[in-house]
Amino acid sequence: MSKAAAKTQVEFEYDGPSMKTEVPGPRSKELTKQLGEIQNVGAINFFCNYEESRGNYLVDVDGNRMLDVYTQISSIPIGYNHPSLIKVMSNPNNMSAFVNRPALGIMPPENFPEKLAESLLSVAPSGMSRVQTMACGSCSNENAYKAMFIWYRNKERGHNNPSDEDMSSCMINQSPGCPDFSILSFMGGFHGRTMGCLATTHSKAIHKLDVPSFDWPIAPFPKLKYPLEEFTRENAQEEARCLEEVEDLIVQWRQKGRPVAGIVIEPIQAEGGDNHATPDFFKKLRNIARKHGSAFHVDEVQTGGGATGKFWAHEHWGMDDPADIVSFSKKMLTGGYYHKDELQADKAYRIFNTWMGDPSKNLFLAEVLNVIRRENLLEEVTRSGKTLLQGLYQLQDQYPNLLSSARGQGTFCAIDIRDDATRNSILLKARDKGVLLGGCGDRSIRFRPALVFKEYHVHMFLNVFSDVLAEHN
Amino acid sequence: MSKAAAKTQVEFEYDGPSMKTEVPGPRSKELTKQLGEIQNVGAINFFCNYEESRGNYLVDVDGNRMLDVYTQISSIPIGYNHPSLIKVMSNPNNMSAFVNRPALGIMPPENFPEKLAESLLSVAPSGMSRVQTMACGSCSNENAYKAMFIWYRNKERGHNNPSDEDMSSCMINQSPGCPDFSILSFMGGFHGRTMGCLATTHSKAIHKLDVPSFDWPIAPFPKLKYPLEEFTRENAQEEARCLEEVEDLIVQWRQKGRPVAGIVIEPIQAEGGDNHATPDFFKKLRNIARKHGSAFHVDEVQTGGGATGKFWAHEHWGMDDPADIVSFSKKMLTGGYYHKDELQADKAYRIFNTWMGDPSKNLFLAEVLNVIRRENLLEEVTRSGKTLLQGLYQLQDQYPNLLSSARGQGTFCAIDIRDDATRNSILLKARDKGVLLGGCGDRSIRFRPALVFKEYHVHMFLNVFSDVLAEHN
Repeated sequence: MSKAAAKTQVEFEYDGPSMKTEVPGPRSKELTKQLGEIQNVGAINFFCNYEESRGNYLVDVDGNRMLDVYTQISSIPIGYNHPSLIKVMSNPNNMSAFVNRPALGIMPPENFPEKLAESLLSVAPSGMSRVQTMACGSCSNENAYKAMFIWYRNKERGHNNPSDEDMSSCMINQSPGCPDFSILSFMGGFHGRTMGCLATTHSKAIHKLDVPSFDWPIAPFPKLKYPLEEFTRENAQEEARCLEEVEDLIVQWRQKGRPVAGIVIEPIQAEGGDNHATPDFFKKLRNIARKHGSAFHVDEVQTGGGATGKFWAHEHWGMDDPADIVSFSKKMLTGGYYHKDELQADKAYRIFNTWMGDPSKNLFLAEVLNVIRRENLLEEVTRSGKTLLQGLYQLQDQYPNLLSSARGQGTFCAIDIRDDATRNSILLKARDKGVLLGGCGDRSIRFRPALVFKEYHVHMFLNVFSDVLAEHN
Repeated sequence: MSKAAAKTQVEFEYDGPSMKTEVPGPRSKELTKQLGEIQNVGAINFFCNYEESRGNYLVDVDGNRMLDVYTQISSIPIGYNHPSLIKVMSNPNNMSAFVNRPALGIMPPENFPEKLAESLLSVAPSGMSRVQTMACGSCSNENAYKAMFIWYRNKERGHNNPSDEDMSSCMINQSPGCPDFSILSFMGGFHGRTMGCLATTHSKAIHKLDVPSFDWPIAPFPKLKYPLEEFTRENAQEEARCLEEVEDLIVQWRQKGRPVAGIVIEPIQAEGGDNHATPDFFKKLRNIARKHGSAFHVDEVQTGGGATGKFWAHEHWGMDDPADIVSFSKKMLTGGYYHKDELQADKAYRIFNTWMGDPSKNLFLAEVLNVIRRENLLEEVTRSGKTLLQGLYQLQDQYPNLLSSARGQGTFCAIDIRDDATRNSILLKARDKGVLLGGCGDRSIRFRPALVFKEYHVHMFLNVFSDVLAEHN
């Protein structure tokens, strides 16, 4: 059954990249110029023909067909135009969910609890039976932070009846109603770009420059040596140093009158350079959070949805009680966050906005999860990921002056390049040969294929990548 | 042509409310209990059958059919299941926009510039040819604030080359990289609930309680007497008082080292109680912003999209250069903001996130705009709005102890009720009789029908409302 289904997907796909022009080609350039009259186009790579894109292949407007190992910044779960998703669209019973977007917080559709159960709750992280949908990753983290602040303040109060002073002072942005709480984040972390999220984002200066921020504590994220299993002693020391700093910061900020209501961390720092830490680090960090009464928020916006070979990257830690809040977006197609019961806001309209997500995205997500189960995609990801990482190790041995620190879980892999300029050149050359990759951190390449990236796609990628590396040696 | 089209819409609709059970009925209660296992359901009114809802009529899961004068917190532009929107869904050419959500900032679809031109730019506010889409209202305002901060800082610098100190200090949330800039907002304003937006929202304490905020200036919004034309002298005095306070605050905050980079205001304060001000007030405020070098941001998230009888509420001010930034969401189906050329971020990746909107919403918006033009809906709104406001005036004369301050533009109307408890009772009683209304402020009822709310809907509403008022006199 699963094999037959997998075959359908394969048949639906192209058999390899096919390049017609340089990228961006003439049509992309023309459209970029047009769009430039409307928006800043400094980040535009090229324009796409999404109608013609299939599975792992993205087709651009100049007819170039590329193997997509970046998937719209890691946000396409099962490839382009998956037949099962097209079926969702074509089902007349689903029409209304697209055409009538409700205010979910006040008047949800009849099937809303059922669709949540079928989609998000069917993959809920350990210990969590509650989930709040939101429209994007930033809104998910913003509202998760708010949930932690509300929880922390009620804990501090010992009850949930705010004083008159709380109620009046909050209206003018002042404490005690707007308390000087903080969220502890990590250098190199990325949690979004709205102002609360941005205060916890520390991956690139251009994201933060000129935007007012909060005086919140920032801990060092471990800088480990790869492969992790070959440097266990040094890595353990580095992790111990960072954990010590975390505790120091929590104490310092409490003394400053800005107690740490929550700690936010990615299981793998993605935008910041695919920085890994060991399960031991996360276990100890979780314990520190508990010890100091701070909520522990695991941001799975980029890591979640199966690319690490488990549905949630934090499942690799092997803990019974890994988190208080887990946020998601991207491959989940809807934003949102899971949370423990006690992190639910105590009153209505505290975590609220007009749309609070989008039920049409829940429909697609339910089907994506069906495909993941039916096609055993987590196993496929584990298999493809092993082949990918082994390939990267081999290339790293072959080009020791060019490559280092190959690392990854599932297909969520990365490798460091000699320097920034070489990295960028490799990205462009690979694209010219029909392989689409993304950078992250200062000089890393990150691999973010869809969950339908099979072993033969890995080999196809490695062949092209090997050719490109040969040109840069 | 327009009459025939209008007829189609009429024929598609029900002929009146029809109530089968109390609201929420048994099925809604059962579903609320189910959803309560997953989320806080304190704000849930009832569950809906969106498939059966049509035009101005919302059908709930217990078979109750209500005339909807609240439209999902003012976010349904042309009623439920409009045939033109269903056509958009059924067009196979549009399939790909729903199934393959792109990262718009790097790899937009071929038709993206064209769809922006056809939809958002075709209704661009005066003087604005640039628009940035976002996923929701809060993200729109957050990013508009960032655009104002970036613009202000570059103006202050005299160039756009940040110093090394800027680049390094911003990474740790410190100035000068993260400068102590502020946004001036108004008491009673609502601009969203993410942390940047929330620092400018001052409508209800429950929105802000326990969330850290920024020390930003908050000016009084004029408390005017209605009808505005009967109290011109008192109102002009009140507006002058508020404008004086605005200037004082700008000077004070500059002296504090927290200069006002932007002023944000709604043309009609909606959540805060449908508070109006005169065109003269907004003209003078715009001039104050210019004089002090602050950007002027008009938040049309709730007022935009036609409900005031003009496409943008600020068009009623009759100014050539009304704003630097105009943000939108709700009835526009996608969030985003228009801006003057100089408010465009100078570099890539400064205003950025994974999705940056959703092209499938642009498709729907383009069709909504076609319907608005084809069916002359702005004229309809003006006509229905006049009838509605006249009806409210009459009821106010009839029930002087119960009602006051009827006010509005187009169908964007409101009226004050004696007290909070009576207001809430009226809302529930009206719902029991098949008319769905919303509250705002302390004791106001706001009317937020779709643009397809015709004069005969107004009469239907007024009849029910009149009966409900008689019960409360």
